[in-house]
Amino acid sequence: MINIGIIGAGRIGKVHGESISKYVKGARVKSIYNFILDDETVAWAKEMGIDEVYDDYNKILNDEEIDAVLICTSTDTHSPISIEAIRAGKHVFCEKPIDHDIQKIKNVMEELEKSNVKYQVGFNRRFDHNFMAAKEAVESGKIGDMNIIKITSRDPEAPPVSYVKVSGGMFLDMTIHDFDMVRFLSGSEVEEVYAMGAVLVNEEIGKAGDIDTAIITMKLANGALAVIDNSREACYGYDQRAEVFGSKGCIQIGNDANSTAVLSNKDGVTGEKPLYFFLQRYMMAYANEISQFVEAIVNDTEVPVSVVDGLNPVLIGLAAQKSLREQRPVKISEIEVQN
Amino acid sequence: MINIGIIGAGRIGKVHGESISKYVKGARVKSIYNFILDDETVAWAKEMGIDEVYDDYNKILNDEEIDAVLICTSTDTHSPISIEAIRAGKHVFCEKPIDHDIQKIKNVMEELEKSNVKYQVGFNRRFDHNFMAAKEAVESGKIGDMNIIKITSRDPEAPPVSYVKVSGGMFLDMTIHDFDMVRFLSGSEVEEVYAMGAVLVNEEIGKAGDIDTAIITMKLANGALAVIDNSREACYGYDQRAEVFGSKGCIQIGNDANSTAVLSNKDGVTGEKPLYFFLQRYMMAYANEISQFVEAIVNDTEVPVSVVDGLNPVLIGLAAQKSLREQRPVKISEIEVQN
Amino acid sequence: MINIGIIGAGRIGKVHGESISKYVKGARVKSIYNFILDDETVAWAKEMGIDEVYDDYNKILNDEEIDAVLICTSTDTHSPISIEAIRAGKHVFCEKPIDHDIQKIKNVMEELEKSNVKYQVGFNRRFDHNFMAAKEAVESGKIGDMNIIKITSRDPEAPPVSYVKVSGGMFLDMTIHDFDMVRFLSGSEVEEVYAMGAVLVNEEIGKAGDIDTAIITMKLANGALAVIDNSREACYGYDQRAEVFGSKGCIQIGNDANSTAVLSNKDGVTGEKPLYFFLQRYMMAYANEISQFVEAIVNDTEVPVSVVDGLNPVLIGLAAQKSLREQRPVKISEIEVQN
Amino acid sequence: MINIGIIGAGRIGKVHGESISKYVKGARVKSIYNFILDDETVAWAKEMGIDEVYDDYNKILNDEEIDAVLICTSTDTHSPISIEAIRAGKHVFCEKPIDHDIQKIKNVMEELEKSNVKYQVGFNRRFDHNFMAAKEAVESGKIGDMNIIKITSRDPEAPPVSYVKVSGGMFLDMTIHDFDMVRFLSGSEVEEVYAMGAVLVNEEIGKAGDIDTAIITMKLANGALAVIDNSREACYGYDQRAEVFGSKGCIQIGNDANSTAVLSNKDGVTGEKPLYFFLQRYMMAYANEISQFVEAIVNDTEVPVSVVDGLNPVLIGLAAQKSLREQRPVKISEIEVQN
Repeated sequence: MINIGIIGAGRIGKVHGESISKYVKGARVKSIYNFILDDETVAWAKEMGIDEVYDDYNKILNDEEIDAVLICTSTDTHSPISIEAIRAGKHVFCEKPIDHDIQKIKNVMEELEKSNVKYQVGFNRRFDHNFMAAKEAVESGKIGDMNIIKITSRDPEAPPVSYVKVSGGMFLDMTIHDFDMVRFLSGSEVEEVYAMGAVLVNEEIGKAGDIDTAIITMKLANGALAVIDNSREACYGYDQRAEVFGSKGCIQIGNDANSTAVLSNKDGVTGEKPLYFFLQRYMMAYANEISQFVEAIVNDTEVPVSVVDGLNPVLIGLAAQKSLREQRPVKISEIEVQN
Repeated sequence: MINIGIIGAGRIGKVHGESISKYVKGARVKSIYNFILDDETVAWAKEMGIDEVYDDYNKILNDEEIDAVLICTSTDTHSPISIEAIRAGKHVFCEKPIDHDIQKIKNVMEELEKSNVKYQVGFNRRFDHNFMAAKEAVESGKIGDMNIIKITSRDPEAPPVSYVKVSGGMFLDMTIHDFDMVRFLSGSEVEEVYAMGAVLVNEEIGKAGDIDTAIITMKLANGALAVIDNSREACYGYDQRAEVFGSKGCIQIGNDANSTAVLSNKDGVTGEKPLYFFLQRYMMAYANEISQFVEAIVNDTEVPVSVVDGLNPVLIGLAAQKSLREQRPVKISEIEVQN
Repeated sequence: MINIGIIGAGRIGKVHGESISKYVKGARVKSIYNFILDDETVAWAKEMGIDEVYDDYNKILNDEEIDAVLICTSTDTHSPISIEAIRAGKHVFCEKPIDHDIQKIKNVMEELEKSNVKYQVGFNRRFDHNFMAAKEAVESGKIGDMNIIKITSRDPEAPPVSYVKVSGGMFLDMTIHDFDMVRFLSGSEVEEVYAMGAVLVNEEIGKAGDIDTAIITMKLANGALAVIDNSREACYGYDQRAEVFGSKGCIQIGNDANSTAVLSNKDGVTGEKPLYFFLQRYMMAYANEISQFVEAIVNDTEVPVSVVDGLNPVLIGLAAQKSLREQRPVKISEIEVQN
Repeated sequence: MINIGIIGAGRIGKVHGESISKYVKGARVKSIYNFILDDETVAWAKEMGIDEVYDDYNKILNDEEIDAVLICTSTDTHSPISIEAIRAGKHVFCEKPIDHDIQKIKNVMEELEKSNVKYQVGFNRRFDHNFMAAKEAVESGKIGDMNIIKITSRDPEAPPVSYVKVSGGMFLDMTIHDFDMVRFLSGSEVEEVYAMGAVLVNEEIGKAGDIDTAIITMKLANGALAVIDNSREACYGYDQRAEVFGSKGCIQIGNDANSTAVLSNKDGVTGEKPLYFFLQRYMMAYANEISQFVEAIVNDTEVPVSVVDGLNPVLIGLAAQKSLREQRPVKISEIEVQN
């Protein structure tokens, strides 16, 4: 039985707490850290069967019974806590992104080289049943030589402008999942990126210096082309589709819905909207990613999403930002050289 | 070039006139009969390139240049005109049903045995691209041993009660197409039928002695079971589906729509309704059935829908009527013996 | 926290044990009975956090801490254990069917009248997201006046012939779920049933006196017609569809699959097969039904599936058997009178 | 009755000849020009009811009975024949593109200004039922403010390399239809284009200086972003999809197939491939475009696809070529200034 400590009791920390208690075999959450010891968190922890709530995460890092920690705090603390946890000899699952600053990610990588712990990054979509089916089609050879990868990723509602200001921008906050997906589905690296962006959802987002709508095209090392289209607001819900087109076939994945019900009436033939947002669509994916993290610890095998998988989408995101700013295609190697 | 005369210039006669002029190669409509020489029919005929409009169909039967006639008059005249046309040496395409009276159909069959002309019955659905695809799946062995056949057949609106009174009843007027489809898809004969009916659409139909909703189950000679569900009124349009389920697979066909457009919005994910009614759904099927009739004449091959194919669905329809009346399953052989 | 004892540790008992431990809030399984204390059951119970395994179910019934029992033994023991449990003052969740013998079900009903416990019957499909969506469409008025209900229910593989011999026959073992679904979706009672059956999957099933393929039509008290088609073996997996057609619309529900992935290649456009069987399709439905049972206990409200809901599908099943035997439609009132 | 002369009896000339004879009311093809008077063309013309076949198109231009001509010759002759036809006072339907040289298109425009004839360009996809449904959704306000337009356009097989060499390149030969579709669906103009291309289908196409795979992103005057993905070879057939995403909804159109048949078996749930290529998919669109051309002549109204609609996609295509060559986004205004 792997004992887990969760560092950070915000939305994503609680998602992991709940999914581990329900779905993850061979692991339990022993303790959770929150910045204050509020009643709500304590009550929630009790309901989940979590022994302790701390307002000092060092209590988790210093607990010899803790095997692994989940870092679910705000992005700017991911890399320092990662380093502390590694030094404390804990296996680490770190929410994405590790950092917006490449150097800080490299600091984590250096620390990892000196240690023997597992380090997994939270790209949960890789563990979604639909994306897994697409990946399986690619790996089994059903697509043949890869030509085009397409990702559609649209949120059902834009985040508050206050969040936009500290999020690192749409490319590092939202599109980073799609950059990861391009790498995951292709099994290849992005070499060049061109980003077109616009402010079409909320003018305030534009005033905050960000965009809310984008189309990003990429060249991959395997020769294929890729394209992502993003919007911060789709009125019909969370739109998460992908397509991989190759010489032997084209695999497409669509959205999940609450049911297969279809109503035919005088207005048309109507099915349900996509599941509303990531908590609905990806709950099982969150459970799956922790299950595989636990398995990697137990069996001492490689984690399914490595620190390099955490680094590279940040590089692509920075390249996309530069492309948008300079209105030209940007090579990933330009970003690597800079850092 | 086969010269055709159309006997009857009602809706279905005009459908054939138009579809032949547009789509049927190697044939032309030379003349058409209507019970009066009204301006509208004359103008329509001119537009279609039809040479003559007559108010006496004997002018068509006596025209030596006419190779074939299409009988599109009211049902009660189908069998006598069929016999006259056969005696005149014309190939005959007769709209369904040949008659509601088995003996009158047998009279036509006897006349045919003495002649050398082609005689095809107007079961147009056999020539629809969807039903043809289902049939092809069955014949190619993709279904394996046949277990269950299901037909859904619903009209978008009930006919006037005045029509219901003279139509011969829903089973002979509407379901007869579905009985034909069971025979067509199975390649087997119906041996027994049980009919459940109700008046759920329009009380006046009930007062006129008919039903407007039905479920009919059948046993086939090949061992399979079949079921038809009918309604005179589906608010979403003409619903024409079929399914053949067997040991190796299940083929399903659905409806056609005006386009593949799907709109996602806050109300759901909405596609178009089925095409409204038979003229929309089956226009090309009407053209195809005449094309194959013409080919059978030109090549002296068997017609695709024989007089027996015209007889047997009437037997099934009469058995269904008896079943509904007597509230018990009825064997087709009971009906055959009676006649 | 409701303490549950599970009586019976076969497949369905274990399904409930696992789903309660994972998904059911406010309840825990305290003890489980198996006819022997084998290592496998003990190990499984430990993994699920179940305190005790007994080989005498009276230990459960006599345990004052136990609030409710789940009866998951073989069908012939459902009614006697139900009565014992009711007398012991335990709330009862009983797997379907309560019994094949109407009198024995009535004995349970009589015992219930003298007691104050909750009694829920295990018709799990009512708690499936798809069937719930269909029901919701009916209840919200989207269908209007109900005309036709259609259920397709096909298993992916036939049970062993040894099981067929003791199962009570396909209508009481398999179709009983579909009879329940007709009642659930219609909110009405079945008044008359006509069954057509065949042996098309496995001759041995026929030799054992049962059928493996059937079409059953029904008349409902609300005037609507219903039809169920069944097969013991669909090569493409568990086929669980339903359709409710009415004056204002038609709701259809289809199967669930592992993913939304669709592969286009030279062979066509191919999606995934339906989920294989009931454990895959209905796992969450099993959890939902126990959650609602627990809620009914906690809030002292009506259970969602009552003992009458357990009785009536057995009556319909017996009527269907009689119909098949006597080759005529059978009224449910005929069966009630007999018992 | 409008008398039409077709100049050019290649594949597209014959498509128009056949579709006019079958589907276009109020028009007939009086004569057709081919560069030689071969037996095949003469026989085909006879079958279609075309009076004359000429090997000198001036005979068509000089025929006073001819109202309109269809220019279906090779692209390099479109503009000079257009000018001759306009001078001869004939209404002109010119196949796309008018020319690859902007100046030559402007010469046609100047000639048109001095004349009174109709001039329509052959962007047939605007008349396809699916694209029309998407356009209708946009115009009716169902999409709200437009954010993203996506076009997928893939051919089932690459053209011969010999054709690639003279085609003007993929952007002017194939993508030009998609550029037109972006303009049609948006009702806006493209302002900037960025093109990414690759040779992934056939190396010989690369050696001939062209690409066979591309992703092209665009900024539109209305603020929306657009993206086209192209391939010269999709193994599953002609892939012609579009999507318009906006503040109120997202309309998607898919491919047409031969039937709605879906086969469920042990391999999955399989529907038919898209219709093979443009002749299958767009036959009715060809008929519709000529019908509307004829109506514009008869009613003296505006043609649905003007000479400007012919010019602008060429500008976008040239900008895309420049973008690919110079690896940077290119404004359409840069191309306009150059010409």
